[in-house]
Parts: sequence; C-alpha cells; structure tokens
Amino acid sequence: MKKPFPDTLLNRIRIVMVRTSHSGNIGAAARAMRVMGLYHLTLVDPKHFPSQEATALASGAVDVLEQAVVVPTLEEALKDCHVAYATTARPRYISSKLYTVEEAAIEAVRDIQVADDQQIAFVFGTERTGLTNEEIELCQRMMTIPTENRYNSLNIASAIQVVCYELHKAHKTALEIPMITEHFDLDPLANGEMREGFYQHLEEVLCQTEFLDPNEPKNIMKKVRNLFQKRDLTEPEIHLLRGILTAINRKIEG
Amino acid sequence: MKKPFPDTLLNRIRIVMVRTSHSGNIGAAARAMRVMGLYHLTLVDPKHFPSQEATALASGAVDVLEQAVVVPTLEEALKDCHVAYATTARPRYISSKLYTVEEAAIEAVRDIQVADDQQIAFVFGTERTGLTNEEIELCQRMMTIPTENRYNSLNIASAIQVVCYELHKAHKTALEIPMITEHFDLDPLANGEMREGFYQHLEEVLCQTEFLDPNEPKNIMKKVRNLFQKRDLTEPEIHLLRGILTAINRKIEG
Repeated sequence: MKKPFPDTLLNRIRIVMVRTSHSGNIGAAARAMRVMGLYHLTLVDPKHFPSQEATALASGAVDVLEQAVVVPTLEEALKDCHVAYATTARPRYISSKLYTVEEAAIEAVRDIQVADDQQIAFVFGTERTGLTNEEIELCQRMMTIPTENRYNSLNIASAIQVVCYELHKAHKTALEIPMITEHFDLDPLANGEMREGFYQHLEEVLCQTEFLDPNEPKNIMKKVRNLFQKRDLTEPEIHLLRGILTAINRKIEG
Repeated sequence: MKKPFPDTLLNRIRIVMVRTSHSGNIGAAARAMRVMGLYHLTLVDPKHFPSQEATALASGAVDVLEQAVVVPTLEEALKDCHVAYATTARPRYISSKLYTVEEAAIEAVRDIQVADDQQIAFVFGTERTGLTNEEIELCQRMMTIPTENRYNSLNIASAIQVVCYELHKAHKTALEIPMITEHFDLDPLANGEMREGFYQHLEEVLCQTEFLDPNEPKNIMKKVRNLFQKRDLTEPEIHLLRGILTAINRKIEG
C-alpha cells in the first residue's frame, strides 16, 4: 500500500508532461513539484520511464515518480480533468485570452477552492517543440511564463518549477497561510523604551568623551541617533551596544 | 571584443554561485538567468569551470558563461557590491528580517532604480549545504523561497530560475512594461452590437425550429443567451456562429 499524499487543495492540480525526451527532466520535474506541495504527475507517452536518471534527479521526490500515471495520449490524461492549461513559450495563434503563469495559478487555486470535485491540469509539451496545435485544442486555457526575449526558453523542469512556485504562493495566499511557515529563529525587535534608553546612554558617553559638546550636544547627536534610528535594532543588539557604552563609561571614570 | 549585454536595470544585479560542485548546475543557472534578462554570473571557487557539461546545459546562454567572473572568495565577489542577499533554504538563526524571494526582488529592483551606481548580488551556496555562517555574514540581507516543507529543497538552478523570474517580474512591474511583450496573434473580441445581433439571429432560428415557443420565447432564450454571454466571444467566432445560423435558415426555408 502506497503512502497517500497530503490531502490539500493543490492535490487536485496535476502536472502533465507530453512526450518528454530526456528522463532527467522527468525526475527534475518531480522534485520541482514536491517541494511546492504538488504530487500528481501524469506522463503522456514518455520516451523512457521509469529510468535511473529520472530517479537520480528526483532527489527526495521518488514517491512522486512511483505514483506517476503513464498514459498513451493527452486526451486520456485529461479525461477526468475539468480545466486544462496549455503552456506555450513561443508566439503562436491564440484564439482567446493568454494567461501569465501568475494569473493562471491564482485562477486555478480559486477554481479548486469553490468546486469540491474539480480537477485541474497544467500541460507541458516536448523539450524541443512544445505542444502541437492539436494538443493545445484539448485544453481550455493557454498560459505563458513572461520572459525577456523570445530567443531563449526555460528548461522544461525550470518552467514546471516556476508554475509550481506560483501555485504554491497562490494556495498560501488564498488560505491566508504565511509565506514562510518554517521555524526561523528571529530575535525580537527592541521597543521604543529600549531604543530611547540606548540613545540617552549614548549621548552621555559621547559627552564624556568630548566627541559631543556638552553645552550643544543636540545637533550632532541628531545625526548619530539617525544612524541607528533608521535601522531595525533587536533586543540583543541593544544589550550589546549598552554593554559597550558601559565599558567605555567605566574606563573613562577609572 | 565581446558583445556587450543589453543596458538594463537588471544588468546591475549579479547571481553569485559559491563552491558549486556540479558543472551542469552552472550551465543550467546561466540559461535560467538569460531567459529572464540577467547576464552577470560570478562563480566563487567552482569545482570545475569551464566545462563541457556547463556549456551543454547553458543552451542559448553560452555568452553568460563566457563572461562569467571567477573569483576565489565570496568577499572578492562582493567587493564592488552595495547590497547582497544571502539565500537560505533551511531554518537557521536569522538576526534580522527574512525576505521572501518576491519581497527581495521588489526591493532590489527599487534599490537599483533610485541609485544609479548600485550593484546588487543574489548569493547561492553549495548544492548540499548552502552557505556557511561566515558567508552569510558577508551579506546584508537574507532571503528564502517559500516551499511546502523543510524536507525538500529546490535544485540550485531551479532556485536561481525562481529568483530571476521574480526579478524579471519586478523589473517589468517597476517600469510598467506589460508582462507579455511577445507578439501573440489574438483575435479581437466581439463588441456589444455584434453580440446582440447574434442573439437576435439565434432567437429567430430557434423559433423557426420550434425549439422556442414563438409566443413565449424569452424564458428559455435567457438561458441560451447566458450560455454565450458568460464567455468571451471573438469577432471570428461570431462570424462562424452567424454562418451556421444562416445555413439553418436556408435549409428550413427550403
């Protein structure tokens, strides 16, 4: 019995790769998907599959490859799918709206949010020539990744990475999940009282050293204060700075 | 004399790869950059460079590899750089704000827009372990690509693809350049007059066929109309539909 993938909205979005030539790209695509929380890969008539090269490049996403669905035609891949986005990299005849990847991701996530049983596909053609016109006609929508110029195109696994990245972002945005959910140790920022205490202490020390004129400290002090005030300061940083000031105090006072 | 790269804002953002092990990743990174309009690659102590494998994977971006700068240390790579973003994939101690890739891209583009000479770097560590703490300390800011879970990470070239994709998007947004600048042939949408003419014609034909009751056509016609009205219809599509209606007209009228 295979371990089921997490039950999330993104689980209803599949990546479909049509007639992929290089096995490594299948493995790299699996890795690109899994890191963004997509698990359903459909392979239409792949040149070689399974393959050692795909497994090697899948890294931690071997389970995505193991559960990949292999079918002979795109029609078969889409038969239980409600909306399919065809990906195109090159200028071609488009009879309707052309979505950017960001727009497509937002719309796809909204669609699966409102309809419980909806299945969505993002379809990628071959490495060299993309999708045929007949394959594009099997899809309801067309999507492209904005690039700098038409003379270069993304590697297919990189394109899948960008699509899955935007889907992941759209999913977190729709569910109001913070973008960074990992546990990062962040020091707390110092509050106003801690900051003002530090500026007060700093001014005293700078007068003691005669860097500031004790009769007219404010003009220069304003600039010194700004040096710190424009920047976020954390509690440990304030403690460190106060420690330095205290050491100077002690040294001067003997 | 090497051909100069285009003089754009993104030209002042460099990608720095530190102690990269796999040459293929260097080539794939060059391709990922160039397709998004970034050209300046700096390699800190790469294991092998130049290499056939990098060139093979660079595809149309061999010029990025040819003009890549190779230096022995990250310090050297950053000496003429004003702001450096360190990339991290794993939870670690962060003394200040952690940017998402989207936030970092927007801020970097804004920074180069307001200061003419500013140079910015996005720094990536080794494939296996990322950047060391000492390397992170050479950077002013930290950035991460939001992912689904911490047990998987992006391939380094895929991570560079996502960063360059967000930089490209931020650049176009800042300069108010449309996301899709390629020439795509889009059919013009039909206007209200063309739509209403079609609905009128359709109603006549549906009454002729007795699908609609000529005395009470409106209730069902509303639904038929909605079938089309909810969707974008192009001019050629309206012409096609009117052609079908005219053919039915003729056949019925004998």
